[in-house]
Amino acid sequence: MSLAALVQKISQDAKIAAREVAVLPTSVKNKALAAIAAGLQQQRSLIEQENQKDIKNAQQQGYPRAFIDRLTLSDKVINSMIQGLNEVSQLPDPVGAITSMWKRPNGLLVGRQRIPLGVIGFIYESRPNVTVDAAALCLKSGNAVILKGGKEAIHSNLVLSSLMAQALASTGIPPTAVQVIPTTEREAVVELLKLDEFIDIVIPRGGEGLIRFVAENSRIPVLKHYKGVCHIFVDSDADLEMAETICFNAKVQRPGVCNAMETLLIHNSIAPRFIPLMFARFREAGVELRGCPQTVALDPQVKPASEQDWGYEFLDLILAVKIVPDLEAGLAHIARYGSYHTEAIITENYRNAQRFLNEVDSSVVLVNASTRFNDGGELGLGAEIGINTSKLHAFGPMGLEELTTTKFIVYGSGQIRQ
Amino acid sequence: MSLAALVQKISQDAKIAAREVAVLPTSVKNKALAAIAAGLQQQRSLIEQENQKDIKNAQQQGYPRAFIDRLTLSDKVINSMIQGLNEVSQLPDPVGAITSMWKRPNGLLVGRQRIPLGVIGFIYESRPNVTVDAAALCLKSGNAVILKGGKEAIHSNLVLSSLMAQALASTGIPPTAVQVIPTTEREAVVELLKLDEFIDIVIPRGGEGLIRFVAENSRIPVLKHYKGVCHIFVDSDADLEMAETICFNAKVQRPGVCNAMETLLIHNSIAPRFIPLMFARFREAGVELRGCPQTVALDPQVKPASEQDWGYEFLDLILAVKIVPDLEAGLAHIARYGSYHTEAIITENYRNAQRFLNEVDSSVVLVNASTRFNDGGELGLGAEIGINTSKLHAFGPMGLEELTTTKFIVYGSGQIRQ
Repeated sequence: MSLAALVQKISQDAKIAAREVAVLPTSVKNKALAAIAAGLQQQRSLIEQENQKDIKNAQQQGYPRAFIDRLTLSDKVINSMIQGLNEVSQLPDPVGAITSMWKRPNGLLVGRQRIPLGVIGFIYESRPNVTVDAAALCLKSGNAVILKGGKEAIHSNLVLSSLMAQALASTGIPPTAVQVIPTTEREAVVELLKLDEFIDIVIPRGGEGLIRFVAENSRIPVLKHYKGVCHIFVDSDADLEMAETICFNAKVQRPGVCNAMETLLIHNSIAPRFIPLMFARFREAGVELRGCPQTVALDPQVKPASEQDWGYEFLDLILAVKIVPDLEAGLAHIARYGSYHTEAIITENYRNAQRFLNEVDSSVVLVNASTRFNDGGELGLGAEIGINTSKLHAFGPMGLEELTTTKFIVYGSGQIRQ
Repeated sequence: MSLAALVQKISQDAKIAAREVAVLPTSVKNKALAAIAAGLQQQRSLIEQENQKDIKNAQQQGYPRAFIDRLTLSDKVINSMIQGLNEVSQLPDPVGAITSMWKRPNGLLVGRQRIPLGVIGFIYESRPNVTVDAAALCLKSGNAVILKGGKEAIHSNLVLSSLMAQALASTGIPPTAVQVIPTTEREAVVELLKLDEFIDIVIPRGGEGLIRFVAENSRIPVLKHYKGVCHIFVDSDADLEMAETICFNAKVQRPGVCNAMETLLIHNSIAPRFIPLMFARFREAGVELRGCPQTVALDPQVKPASEQDWGYEFLDLILAVKIVPDLEAGLAHIARYGSYHTEAIITENYRNAQRFLNEVDSSVVLVNASTRFNDGGELGLGAEIGINTSKLHAFGPMGLEELTTTKFIVYGSGQIRQ
């Protein structure tokens, strides 16, 4: 079978399975999640054995240590997959909920009912545990899923896939509801992205290169974010102690993730008071600071920022700092350089807080809280499959509900159109 | 300026305008709608004069009468545009509504707030009145819009565009919030569809050819439906009189539209009773019937249906008819040949009604009512810009609310991520 034919067959099978999965009772879906968890528990040695093949290959090809860490399905990682399955099992099932219902003058009862999206194409890079995490969310939300992981994790992904297929079959669910594309060729992704007839939504997760590749080649709508260039604006009326705590958390707690702060905007009038303590704390944590001329004037140890540093996702202990004359200028900077991801204001001023919430065009906008809260779990969605910054139904973190849409259901009693 | 540069400039300007339009008070948006209506009222002769150029060109090029009718901006059509503007003005403004809000254990107040999509690309065919109708919906929902109409309506669209720009400017709204691409070249559409940096959503409206062209060339998510192949299933427990009335309405009232019935599925057990009266009525209205072998056996005047007739959008007084042994077979036929658009069941059986609503994967699913109700106005959305059968946030008719999405807003008091 050619690669194109293989991908087509997988997608067709997924579409058929999706019809069944869409109407499964919650209890059956939870049973399947439990069966997958039990499979992982029982087959630890098999999983580790297959995972070793990937690790050995990666080592031979000279991948860096951090990469191999992410690739490794240790006992701890297997435990976290099992825990994830249990957590998803406990989340409420979004499918079938009537989100609203109203009566028309002609007596028609019109409602909107949550339904699964259908078939989700999930394209991701190295970590093989994501294979199980993503499958669990798709299954619980009544979707079929086609998974295409990184080539370096192919043995791991295939053994997890076969475990999940067995678990599904044992609970009477078509195993084609969760499929891993069994090839390392990138051409498979290109083929997949053409199949808008069978696949409803594509979610890529990984580096900006992967995501751009998917967006540019897809005929299917893509839920994605390219990057998270998160800003914090410290207002003239900020509680400076709170500002220091939040900015430190947003930059330092986990600098390599998309909801970490990349640019700090400081109101002119408090900069001389705020900068000394804040920068001392950043330096202690090893943060490299790159500032606008005014910042450098206040603290000559700061490296001058280049134009490239604005709107740049460092994903590292590096921070761009700009002093602005007012909220207006802060909003303009965010509008120009932001990535629609996460922005926060630190202020005690009521009007500025409301204005910031209202005008900033980002998936999550916060007052007096860390940007690190842009996360499905932290915001109360239970779990997330990713964060979307396209203006589609799911702007921001995507949990179970964001893997559904609604259809209209209409209860009539013989109505016709006049 | 090259065509590509022109389209890029228009799109960039739209994005800048979108930021302003997003936060306009409802009263200002309504004032702009009123100003557009007043402009149409005052400039009737100018509009008709420009429209005449399009009509003359179309006549010279031998376009059919029906096409020229659709192209004509008669006094009646101008009145309907004015009425449409007034209606949209009276609809509630969806922007800013908090759709839900909850408190996290750490005290964060997390809410979802409706925001505009941003910049909408609207690509459509002949009728120039759509230029104003679509602009009104986009403006009221806080979006900027770029309109690309058919080449045959270019003079009409440009005069309407200039009227709208004046009206916007007179109310202090950037005129670039509503722009018509001033060219007849299709290449402009290709350029537009690349600009995912500036445009958030594309909505094509027109024939299947146009829509496929847009879907295949777009890097921006597309809200669309290719076709409406609507089915009605007449169950064994149907009230046959009601079934007759609804099926007649769904096929005959306006056969050329996407929510008209194209295939009638009849339960085996009532076919012999239902068919004689129903078919007599269809024939009286000039409906051509194409049936499965069983249908032909019951009524030899029926032409045998070919495989092509299933899942075909006739948009005409032609109906495909199939007798099925049970609901299961009806559901399977719809799953195979349906277009995710509109499906109805006629039944007095509670369980079958609920099962049909639950299992049919269409944007609108009805019990005992005509498929013709898949329409934003009829379902109570106020108005619609189109119907979407992709599984995005707006599955079905799209009114004002469907031209928005939500962002997360978070009220904190110093929270950081642990």
